[in-house]
Amino acid sequence: MAKSPEEEHPVKAFGWAAKDPSGTLSPFNFSRRENGDDDVTIKIQYCGVCHSDLHAIKNEWGFSYFPVLPGHEIVGVVTKAGSNVQKFKVGDRVGVGVIVNSCKSCETCKQDLENYCPKMVFTYNSMNYDGTKTYGGYSDMVVVDYRYVLRFPDNLPPDSGAPLLCAGITVYSPMKYYGMTEPGKHLGVAGLGGLGHVAVKLGKAFGLKVTVISSSPKKETEAIGKLGADAFLVSSDPEKVKAALGTMDFIIDTIAAVHPLAPLLGLLKLNGKLITIGLPDKPLELPIFPLVLGRKLVGGSDIGGIKETQEMLDFCAKHNITSEIELIRMDYINTAMERLAKSDVRYRFVIDVANSLTK
Amino acid sequence: MAKSPEEEHPVKAFGWAAKDPSGTLSPFNFSRRENGDDDVTIKIQYCGVCHSDLHAIKNEWGFSYFPVLPGHEIVGVVTKAGSNVQKFKVGDRVGVGVIVNSCKSCETCKQDLENYCPKMVFTYNSMNYDGTKTYGGYSDMVVVDYRYVLRFPDNLPPDSGAPLLCAGITVYSPMKYYGMTEPGKHLGVAGLGGLGHVAVKLGKAFGLKVTVISSSPKKETEAIGKLGADAFLVSSDPEKVKAALGTMDFIIDTIAAVHPLAPLLGLLKLNGKLITIGLPDKPLELPIFPLVLGRKLVGGSDIGGIKETQEMLDFCAKHNITSEIELIRMDYINTAMERLAKSDVRYRFVIDVANSLTK
Repeated sequence: MAKSPEEEHPVKAFGWAAKDPSGTLSPFNFSRRENGDDDVTIKIQYCGVCHSDLHAIKNEWGFSYFPVLPGHEIVGVVTKAGSNVQKFKVGDRVGVGVIVNSCKSCETCKQDLENYCPKMVFTYNSMNYDGTKTYGGYSDMVVVDYRYVLRFPDNLPPDSGAPLLCAGITVYSPMKYYGMTEPGKHLGVAGLGGLGHVAVKLGKAFGLKVTVISSSPKKETEAIGKLGADAFLVSSDPEKVKAALGTMDFIIDTIAAVHPLAPLLGLLKLNGKLITIGLPDKPLELPIFPLVLGRKLVGGSDIGGIKETQEMLDFCAKHNITSEIELIRMDYINTAMERLAKSDVRYRFVIDVANSLTK
Repeated sequence: MAKSPEEEHPVKAFGWAAKDPSGTLSPFNFSRRENGDDDVTIKIQYCGVCHSDLHAIKNEWGFSYFPVLPGHEIVGVVTKAGSNVQKFKVGDRVGVGVIVNSCKSCETCKQDLENYCPKMVFTYNSMNYDGTKTYGGYSDMVVVDYRYVLRFPDNLPPDSGAPLLCAGITVYSPMKYYGMTEPGKHLGVAGLGGLGHVAVKLGKAFGLKVTVISSSPKKETEAIGKLGADAFLVSSDPEKVKAALGTMDFIIDTIAAVHPLAPLLGLLKLNGKLITIGLPDKPLELPIFPLVLGRKLVGGSDIGGIKETQEMLDFCAKHNITSEIELIRMDYINTAMERLAKSDVRYRFVIDVANSLTK
């Protein structure tokens, strides 16, 4: 018989988990493996609340197995380092993102694209190679193979920097891959949430002209004044949309709900690229004429590899890019999830784990 | 009052045109402009029958204005050349494709991408800058600005080479633009018609492994034996489709009917590209998960510029690439159109204009 989460491993651990698809999070005793030769043990300080966490605790993508202990935007301090670990020492500030293991031998792993490894292990709700389940960062500590641990730059605030470990790399990687880093080009950012607001900041750091495309006119002041966008396009205003037709080189589409692609494709210039990083659970309607007549493309991208995640953290540290956050206590998490479901957050909840996770 | 097609210009011309959306083609007297300083007059020898011709005579895309005299895969001989024309002389064999004019001053024209010029003039069913309508190659002669005329290589047969002027460039241009020319890469060709069979030949000339993806098992022998494909995948065979999952670097999707994209996306490797050059008249369903999880893209492309069309013709001449054709007489055209509507052609009808167009 399989051991209980509490008895599975020798090291006691504690966090908040969802026990069933109601998604309600509550205190949860479990265990972590002993720190191995390749491992780093991390005392967790902060953990971001990603929209994926909400999908997972409610089993909205259909592959949750409970209990689910979410959290993959983890910042903390090293408390143990195995004998093979040169890169980190006790006391170092580190980060853990979406990935905690991969096969290390396939073509994608060899290209530092562990995020596309067919045997990639997610930080939570995933089965690790030892046959035990992974639990995320809504918890006191975590043990991770050092190859999947990031150096967290000294000048990056650990609370508002935490969301970069998922939201940051999810935006940064496609911007590099699809060539969206040429200064002066025009980037549209569709959807101004956790991903979108980081896309605005990264776009400005790359020297792009950035226009936010949103259905909420009330976000305009903040998009321009606080986040630094150059322009704001209310997607429901036909006159303004018409004036913006054919003006954008790229659009990063962060909208997770089902939505029409035709209006976004219309905003693109010849050779324009629409890159979708949200994950609508149903297919979208793709009109073919604009793709063909404007040589446009619709592409996707999923997080990023560990090497590129480190590059992204260093880039953000250099350019003072952080997430806009609302710091919450652990016992606020169920309220936070309700608000997140209504997009009522600017722009990311981060749990102050070290100061609020008590038994 | 507007002049009749016969009186509009000084030069008498004759061809076959559709007078209404029934699409029936019949003899038609009209006129062409006098050969200007920048013009070349061409006696038409052969003209390919493109699927677009069928869409146009039946007004299936909704922008036909009758009478429609189709044909944009024209090969002929120069009979007059204007005083500014250095490039061509009387007696030269030349070709005319989909485009006969463009603004010559916009960004796309300056980049030799006249095919994306917003003021581009199609070879037929289009309004030229002098306010008169364009008539295509199902006719005895045509007058074209020399900048839109192609040198037709001596060793390219004028009949089976004619379809390259549309089908050839429509496949060649995306292969170059989307980087499908690296030897050893694996290309899928979805749909084995006028475009698809040229894609197979071009793919092999670029050194690719080529797999034809088709719903018709009966095309296998010909695809491999005659066209040179390396493999044939029957899209309705679940076992074979499963074995082919994740094996292709690119797919050229030539299917003009509404069809699901998910099965094609599944055949692609990480970073795979699905390039659609058919023009379904309704949106297709685009599942987002495969795009995101495999960093795949769906892109389009529309014909190609004049410079690239010349490059393609020269490439095809060098590699002995022609279209497989069925040479027909002009008075067979209505039967040919009926057969084309049922995809009953291997793989392109070409009209023997010079020998069969009589009043």
